[in-house]
Amino acid sequence: MAKIIKFEDPKNNFGDCVNELTSLCKEDLASINTVILDKLDSPIPLIKEITSYLINSGGKRLRPLFTCSSYEICKSDKSKSNYHIDLAAAVEFIHAATLMHDDVVDESMKRRGQLTANEVWGNKTSVLVGDFLFSRAFQLMAKSESNKILKILSDTSVTIAEGEILEISNDKDPTINEDIYFDIINAKTASLFSAACQVGAIATKTSNEKIEALKTFGLNFGMSFQLIDDAIDYSSSSYYLGKNIGDDFKQGKVTLPVILAYLRSNNKEKNYWKRTMQDLNQKEDDFKKALKIIDKYNCIEDTIKRAKHFADIAIDSLGIFNDTTYKKILINLTDSSLKRLF
Amino acid sequence: MAKIIKFEDPKNNFGDCVNELTSLCKEDLASINTVILDKLDSPIPLIKEITSYLINSGGKRLRPLFTCSSYEICKSDKSKSNYHIDLAAAVEFIHAATLMHDDVVDESMKRRGQLTANEVWGNKTSVLVGDFLFSRAFQLMAKSESNKILKILSDTSVTIAEGEILEISNDKDPTINEDIYFDIINAKTASLFSAACQVGAIATKTSNEKIEALKTFGLNFGMSFQLIDDAIDYSSSSYYLGKNIGDDFKQGKVTLPVILAYLRSNNKEKNYWKRTMQDLNQKEDDFKKALKIIDKYNCIEDTIKRAKHFADIAIDSLGIFNDTTYKKILINLTDSSLKRLF
Repeated sequence: MAKIIKFEDPKNNFGDCVNELTSLCKEDLASINTVILDKLDSPIPLIKEITSYLINSGGKRLRPLFTCSSYEICKSDKSKSNYHIDLAAAVEFIHAATLMHDDVVDESMKRRGQLTANEVWGNKTSVLVGDFLFSRAFQLMAKSESNKILKILSDTSVTIAEGEILEISNDKDPTINEDIYFDIINAKTASLFSAACQVGAIATKTSNEKIEALKTFGLNFGMSFQLIDDAIDYSSSSYYLGKNIGDDFKQGKVTLPVILAYLRSNNKEKNYWKRTMQDLNQKEDDFKKALKIIDKYNCIEDTIKRAKHFADIAIDSLGIFNDTTYKKILINLTDSSLKRLF
Repeated sequence: MAKIIKFEDPKNNFGDCVNELTSLCKEDLASINTVILDKLDSPIPLIKEITSYLINSGGKRLRPLFTCSSYEICKSDKSKSNYHIDLAAAVEFIHAATLMHDDVVDESMKRRGQLTANEVWGNKTSVLVGDFLFSRAFQLMAKSESNKILKILSDTSVTIAEGEILEISNDKDPTINEDIYFDIINAKTASLFSAACQVGAIATKTSNEKIEALKTFGLNFGMSFQLIDDAIDYSSSSYYLGKNIGDDFKQGKVTLPVILAYLRSNNKEKNYWKRTMQDLNQKEDDFKKALKIIDKYNCIEDTIKRAKHFADIAIDSLGIFNDTTYKKILINLTDSSLKRLF
């Protein structure tokens, strides 16, 4: 079992912070949901069926919340109101499309505690509905009058696809180094958080300095967020997230806890990782053994330390903004995300 | 075996027409290929490997040729030169992305005489490389300064995805009516030909009348082109296309020849279609029997007649343009496409 690490300020709970931000952005979220519902509509019954299943799957809309927060932090009299709503919806569509294709690629059966679309309707339908969502994202982006925004969102889509392909290129390889792994999660996860923040800021016509600050915030929040997600998969207290723990292990999906464990393992343990992750030759007690080796070498604590490094950068990047409620919540959210394991 | 239908002017050969247009657009095609090569580049080795395999697979670049032709037909002193190059490349990327996902969905093993990417690298990689190509298309589009162009290409991407989903919603159902089938091929195939023509025209800053004419041309050419493709799959003279005939039948992919045959079949034959297409319960001689029933009810001739209906509309839509070499080739291309079976 991973040891409990004490943080200086344990009072924030990630779920509470998300709820606080959700409540603060209530009106914007309602508008975003209207756009999403409108764009999920289609004359094809199968599309309606799947997309309404997805809507009810209980996503937190974390990325749209970041777009709204960035908009609020940067807005001035010059800012057009509601310009960020379509962009936030576009970001959510890109996210939803990549999740659908991710689940096909990872052969995932559950997400957020319910069966994945590929499990219910099959891989082929998921590929095509993912394409539909992706196209809807671009349809929304195309309404934007800002070339800068179009460039950011289309560049980010390329980056995400490259990240996914880099990941399967290194599939089941516990010997990959941290840098390659950071490249993967930077592209797969952090880049979209960063884009979500940037487009919210750009929508206000704010200064480049502020846009760059929120770009850094989103990127580093995303890195930190993903690393904690990785750690959660090797933690016994995370069942409430609707994610089966041990999924990454069972699929041979190499994440930071395993990368660190492999680097620190003796030869016998290294062979164990190769057998279980690379060859996917897993016995009944192998996950328990993984937890034991990961614990022996403090790999969860050190994954959290790496996450804290990125969280610190994220929080510092907000230093140029005045102390507003939104800034405070973004800081609390980043801080509390580190404690999602406990 | 389908009966030979005589056309008034049998001298045009489709391949020769494509070659003539290719040679006329030589310089533009070289520029488009440079953009394509540049955008297929990636630091991820697996992407380079697959995309260079795709480049060498010998596509005709038919859609980019339509963008160039439309540009040439409409251009004036006001037109910015080379503005259409990136757009033609974007159209080709959308096409390449949908082909990759199509092959995954159809479980195709061969395309243009060589193994499909999903056959060589697996479905998962094909899904992600398809996403990469799709994102590259949007990256190219994002450089366009025209909201109209962005709207057309992003709307078309949605339409294609909807078409694909409509198709799998009616998978293996020989009882679907012609209208639904026309909706499917309109969305899956014709819409991108239409978009290819439109963006070429818009790039010249021409009149709406000319843009609309080329929109109609592309759409109706696309319908006609697809219907002939459908007929080819039930023709014995088409092996030279690198396409195994009978593929649609083997996969239970219902196309117009089967839809017409089903509608005209007696009860015993109707049951045969249900067994072979719907249940995919096929015996050795079943494809021969399919050809026999299709021939009995003149379904190939009538598929070609339907195709000719659309080809006629396509050719008439060009009536507002002066008689130029480009116009003449587009007419010949449309006309000769009808004769690809013979």
